[in-house]
Amino acid sequence: MRLLDLVLGRRLANREYQHRKIGALEGVPAMGLDAIGSCAYGPEAALAILIPLGAGVSSWIGWVMVPVVGLLVVLFASYWQTIHAYPNNGGGYLVSRENLGTHASLLAAAALMIDYVLNVAVGISAGVGALVSAVPALQPHILACCLAILALITLANLRGTPDAGRLFAVPTYLFIGSYALVICLGLGELWRSGGHPHPIVPPPQLPAAVGTVSVWLLLRSFASGCTAMTGVEAVSNGMSAFREPTTRYGARTLTTIVAVLGLFLVGISWLVVSYRIGAMDQSQPGYRSVLSQLASAVAGQGSLYYIAIGSLTAVLALSANTSFVDFPRLCRMVAGDRFLPKSFAIAGHRLVYSVGILYLAGCAGLLLFAFGGVTDALIPLFAIGAFLTFTLSQAGMVVHWRRAHPDRRGRRAQVAVNLLGAVTTGVALVVIVITKFTAGAWITVLIIPCVIVLLKTIRGYYDRLDRQVRERTRLAIHETRPPVVLVVIERWNKLTDQALNLALSLSPDVMAVHLTQLAGPEVEEQGRALRERWESDVVNPARAAGLSAPGLVILQAQYRAIGEAVVRYLRVLENDYPRRRIAVLVPEVVRQHWYQYVLHAGRARSLMRHLLQHGGGHVFVISLPWYLYPPTPEPTRPREPLTRTGTAP
Amino acid sequence: MRLLDLVLGRRLANREYQHRKIGALEGVPAMGLDAIGSCAYGPEAALAILIPLGAGVSSWIGWVMVPVVGLLVVLFASYWQTIHAYPNNGGGYLVSRENLGTHASLLAAAALMIDYVLNVAVGISAGVGALVSAVPALQPHILACCLAILALITLANLRGTPDAGRLFAVPTYLFIGSYALVICLGLGELWRSGGHPHPIVPPPQLPAAVGTVSVWLLLRSFASGCTAMTGVEAVSNGMSAFREPTTRYGARTLTTIVAVLGLFLVGISWLVVSYRIGAMDQSQPGYRSVLSQLASAVAGQGSLYYIAIGSLTAVLALSANTSFVDFPRLCRMVAGDRFLPKSFAIAGHRLVYSVGILYLAGCAGLLLFAFGGVTDALIPLFAIGAFLTFTLSQAGMVVHWRRAHPDRRGRRAQVAVNLLGAVTTGVALVVIVITKFTAGAWITVLIIPCVIVLLKTIRGYYDRLDRQVRERTRLAIHETRPPVVLVVIERWNKLTDQALNLALSLSPDVMAVHLTQLAGPEVEEQGRALRERWESDVVNPARAAGLSAPGLVILQAQYRAIGEAVVRYLRVLENDYPRRRIAVLVPEVVRQHWYQYVLHAGRARSLMRHLLQHGGGHVFVISLPWYLYPPTPEPTRPREPLTRTGTAP
Repeated sequence: MRLLDLVLGRRLANREYQHRKIGALEGVPAMGLDAIGSCAYGPEAALAILIPLGAGVSSWIGWVMVPVVGLLVVLFASYWQTIHAYPNNGGGYLVSRENLGTHASLLAAAALMIDYVLNVAVGISAGVGALVSAVPALQPHILACCLAILALITLANLRGTPDAGRLFAVPTYLFIGSYALVICLGLGELWRSGGHPHPIVPPPQLPAAVGTVSVWLLLRSFASGCTAMTGVEAVSNGMSAFREPTTRYGARTLTTIVAVLGLFLVGISWLVVSYRIGAMDQSQPGYRSVLSQLASAVAGQGSLYYIAIGSLTAVLALSANTSFVDFPRLCRMVAGDRFLPKSFAIAGHRLVYSVGILYLAGCAGLLLFAFGGVTDALIPLFAIGAFLTFTLSQAGMVVHWRRAHPDRRGRRAQVAVNLLGAVTTGVALVVIVITKFTAGAWITVLIIPCVIVLLKTIRGYYDRLDRQVRERTRLAIHETRPPVVLVVIERWNKLTDQALNLALSLSPDVMAVHLTQLAGPEVEEQGRALRERWESDVVNPARAAGLSAPGLVILQAQYRAIGEAVVRYLRVLENDYPRRRIAVLVPEVVRQHWYQYVLHAGRARSLMRHLLQHGGGHVFVISLPWYLYPPTPEPTRPREPLTRTGTAP
Repeated sequence: MRLLDLVLGRRLANREYQHRKIGALEGVPAMGLDAIGSCAYGPEAALAILIPLGAGVSSWIGWVMVPVVGLLVVLFASYWQTIHAYPNNGGGYLVSRENLGTHASLLAAAALMIDYVLNVAVGISAGVGALVSAVPALQPHILACCLAILALITLANLRGTPDAGRLFAVPTYLFIGSYALVICLGLGELWRSGGHPHPIVPPPQLPAAVGTVSVWLLLRSFASGCTAMTGVEAVSNGMSAFREPTTRYGARTLTTIVAVLGLFLVGISWLVVSYRIGAMDQSQPGYRSVLSQLASAVAGQGSLYYIAIGSLTAVLALSANTSFVDFPRLCRMVAGDRFLPKSFAIAGHRLVYSVGILYLAGCAGLLLFAFGGVTDALIPLFAIGAFLTFTLSQAGMVVHWRRAHPDRRGRRAQVAVNLLGAVTTGVALVVIVITKFTAGAWITVLIIPCVIVLLKTIRGYYDRLDRQVRERTRLAIHETRPPVVLVVIERWNKLTDQALNLALSLSPDVMAVHLTQLAGPEVEEQGRALRERWESDVVNPARAAGLSAPGLVILQAQYRAIGEAVVRYLRVLENDYPRRRIAVLVPEVVRQHWYQYVLHAGRARSLMRHLLQHGGGHVFVISLPWYLYPPTPEPTRPREPLTRTGTAP
């Protein structure tokens, strides 16, 4: 446990929860890496679809990127309204649940969960891809690199969101600063040269056109460009991580992220056209990404280039972090509505929802493992979840405004903004699903209903449980007689002594059961000896102390299955003592050290498990510990102070 | 469980133990595979050391093999006496313990254990080696083949010794039959040709001599040839597996095994000299084993050749089975003396000591894995354990005769036989250790003391345990007051109702403890509401039923660690109720299906574990089950018949 504390940080009290919240400075690295990292692959993806146009791409990329940036502006306005309307949590799940009902919210939850898992796998894989193209010696270790980064991000998040935010701040701000400089330098050169810049390192010649432009091609390019928008919803999902007033810090974070992303998208698109840079075929040798071509064209291959590319690599690899901030919070909410196991809603020692974090890491790790660390094939599956949530969330906001302000003035403007958001993202969603259906989007379309069914099944279980244990109004006393106590004795020693003492203090009806493994005259002889000894050493002292004498039963466990023999005997006792509770008292040597797990067969514990499984409603189990060593003192870390209020009996 | 039954066979009652015992027919495959398989590698190993002599080997192999066969005869006589003197178990461990004391017996146990593990790894590896040289396509799958055979043998033995004996009888008797035929044909040809046989397939020319003969060379060759003797002790170790009268079946099995081994050794040596066959360098391409050369020289490469070689391969691979018969029985005895964990002495569902079998399979599997399935390097480590046990066992027998028959007539002859055995095997042991010390024997010499220390440490633990829980003569009643009962309630439902009912039936001093995770005015408000409700819904009904009212305490679990908070409160209760026992009553939803392990966080169980670890001597735990589904019925396989004898209270 000490080592774990060192790695994961000391454990935190509930009252420290407020101090673990973040502002905008940590908010941008914690929640913005996904969105900001998108400006690397959004334009690249859009340009890649246009490769067949050759040099003609320059005339058309604007037709794609302008709607993308326009959509981003609409989204910004929509989410600005959302986080002000839901200052504690404005995620797609909650907004849909509040305004559109359970079904829509489950749709949003399923879409988001899939999206988050994919984002982790794809982000890390993209970062490692960039790293490997810079350091080819790492080529054989792609999977190991991916898993190492995944482990790093997981550990950072198990320590808590503020720690992760601080840890990842350096590469984030380095990336923003260096690419801002690159774009400014490029725009300056553009202005100086009157629109015909001279690249320091000329980008590769654009190839000859092999196809002609079509609406379908532009739509596909737009759909790919839309991946630049994923991650914008992160702030609204993660509002609960912010300090009070959450609205202020959330809005600042959202504005910073969208401003950086928007300006970068505009700047990059402009420079790409001016410098005549196009996407290259990733499967060909000599491939260079668009941002790498751009940085070297503007700034040459000096230190700025390496800082820019290095920080870009880090941002891509760490963009997985956004999922780690939001996924556990989403699962916590879904678990709170009992659509996920309770353990997702339990805060761990460091006040983070450790189960969610570990589950996300596990799923992403499996994906990375299955694809050997190269997850390009998953990219088409990616944007659907994000745009489905956008649409549901904005549609929910429209309903929200209509309900909340049935006659206020601000209403029209607010409805208009969110309605515009819902419609545009809805259209984009349709475009993405249609253009990418055969490329893999059908998998997402198939998986989402499965996840919804799973969530509903879990809820069904909890509902069934609740119906059965439903609250009683008043305590109903239905059996005041003490239970019949059955003491399981292996041999005659201090454990037996202690157990019989306890049993006699609980009930006048005590029965000891001794199990033999073999039959035969020898065993019968032993049994008679045992019974004689029982009379003199147990029955007489008990009577002398004024207690009723305990009985002794010798059972044969022919199949060496103690549990079965005891359960069989319980059925007899239930007949002898109808409607009485039966306690089975199992003395056990407490295993305080690891080697005791090897040295003791653990028969007491397995007998207990068997009895709880098969005993039935009248039977309960008493575990009586025997300490070979003094009871282990509790760890000396921050302790539960004992704060009690109450009535003594 | 049903699937397991299918694979491992139905479970067996104790009374079936007698029917699971074997005669000589199953005894030879069950215990003789190791010894009989030795005739393949014993002469081969002896000849391999003599390779430098070239064609001169023929004049010297007799000097090596005659002492080996002589030693075998002495061993046979010695063990014949041993199994008659110890008809139930005449293993080295028992004989040493009875006659030479604990230290010698632990030495024998350690040597045997190491020997058995090595035998499994080396035997399987040798079999697979032979298989691969016949079917080179299997070359890349050596390790997989080894592990598959290991799994097969393990499964067969988990089903029980008779099943394993029957399963492995076919290859064993096929091997004996086919090689007996080969040897007879060879001797016939020898007689017909007047000592100058014409090989059907001529063996490779013996190489030119590159060294001269020396005593050291002959000693090394003898030490290698001694590996032919390993496995002879198996019958004495496994006597408990035989039907009554064990002496008869044991003696028959031993005689068969030694006769086959001895005749084969003599026949093979004779033919090898006549046919001018030598060992070949195993690392060179075109390598063929001595027995393969012999079979093709005598019988050509017809069907007899393939049957002989095929059954030899099987016998080598299955020679591991001998260890599986003896190792668990040895461990069971050692565990009976409390030098090994108790679980080694518990018979599983099929009346075999499953833990020992699985442990052996695990160790051998690790060895195979570590060496990639090629364990040639382990062969030198091999004979030491066997010869150490031979020596200790025979020395023990000498003491036995001296004690048992201080003045009987037979005594001298019997002492003489075992003394001869002890001295010759002792000398052979010294020769083996010296000649093979640098080749790896030092590892065995090093490991044996480590194993002994481990065994003694385990015994030390059990002794400590025994001293603490030592038998009391009479029940001492020291506390007759009922315990204080602490009921842990999470929320107000039927589980709480049931728990309070039970608590009130056990003791007048009941205290309910409710844990909150947060502090603050809101929580205090909730606490007041809970207390008011407690008064009306619990205290009043209890008083109305004539019971004392249970108290309510609200604790804050700041660190979300319920267990720590409860333990802290237990310390307070121990002050309030000095010298009273305290029961902590934990209601728990019984997890009857796998998905319930996912859907319930298992906090009841982990609270229970925490309380048992840290609660202390006055505290015990009551587990009150709640069944969401009807209690699982027990499996419908052969059941424990309820045979009870005893006194009712």
